[in-house]
Amino acid sequence: MSIALDLQGKIRAAIPLSDAMQFNIVELKENSILVHAPLSPNVNIHGTGFAGSIYSLAVLTGWAMVTHIIKSQGFDGDLVVGKAEIRYRKPVGGDIECRCSVPDNLYQAFNRDMKTNGKAKLSLEIEVGDSQALLNATFFASVESRA
Amino acid sequence: MSIALDLQGKIRAAIPLSDAMQFNIVELKENSILVHAPLSPNVNIHGTGFAGSIYSLAVLTGWAMVTHIIKSQGFDGDLVVGKAEIRYRKPVGGDIECRCSVPDNLYQAFNRDMKTNGKAKLSLEIEVGDSQALLNATFFASVESRA
Repeated sequence: MSIALDLQGKIRAAIPLSDAMQFNIVELKENSILVHAPLSPNVNIHGTGFAGSIYSLAVLTGWAMVTHIIKSQGFDGDLVVGKAEIRYRKPVGGDIECRCSVPDNLYQAFNRDMKTNGKAKLSLEIEVGDSQALLNATFFASVESRA
Repeated sequence: MSIALDLQGKIRAAIPLSDAMQFNIVELKENSILVHAPLSPNVNIHGTGFAGSIYSLAVLTGWAMVTHIIKSQGFDGDLVVGKAEIRYRKPVGGDIECRCSVPDNLYQAFNRDMKTNGKAKLSLEIEVGDSQALLNATFFASVESRA
C-alpha cells in the first residue's frame, strides 16, 4: 500500500467525518499534498460545497501534510490545530480539491525546531478550488514531541 | 412539528454532513440558539472533538440562527458565509454544544437593513463548549433578498 493510501486509511478510520466526506489523498510528496472530496456528500442547501465541508477538507489537508512530515522525518509528536482563518471567495460548484505546499524555509525551520526542542509550530496556507483558488485557509498548527 | 425540529430536518436533509454529524437544535428562540452533536461521529484521532466537526457545528449554528431570523421576519433571502475565524483553546472532551445570541442592536440593524435595502450583513459570535466556552468562532454572514 502506498504511503498516501495508508495515511488516508488511518485518517478515515480515526475520524468518522473524513470518511463521511470521502476524503481522498490524490498526491503526497515530501512537502506538498493534494486532496479531493466529491461534491455530493459535501453539498449545501444551494447545491454547492458546504462551508463546513470545505473547512474540514482544508484542516484534514493540513493535518495529513504535517503528519506525513513528522513521520517521514522520524519524529513522534502530537499535532494540534491552534486557530484558523478562512475566507470564502465564491461558491465551489464541483468536487472539492485542496492543496498545500510547505515552503522550503518553513519546512527546514520546522525540522530544525523539532530536532532541537522537540516541538515546533507551522503556519500552513491551504488553497481550495479547481483551476483557480476559490478560497484560502490559514492554519496555525503546533507539534510537541511525545518523547 | 416544532419550528426547531422543522429547521433541523430541513438542514439535515439538504446538508449530508450535518446528518452524519447528528446535528440537533436543542433550543431556538427569536435571537438565540443552542445546538448539540454527540462526540462519537465527530471524534478525532485523539478521541476528542475533530476541529472540522467543531467548526462545521459552529457554522451550522450561525446558519440556522440567521435562517430562523430571516423566516420569522418574513424575509426571503440567500444566506452566504463570507469568512470565519476560529480559535481552539483546548480539546472538547465530550459532546459538542454551540450557542449563539444575536445582540439586540445587531438584530434590529439586520432587520432594518433587510427591510430598507433587501440585504444585510451580520457578524455572529458562536461559543462552543459545555460549562465553559472552549473556543469562539466568528462568522461574517451576508444575506441578499431573492426578491
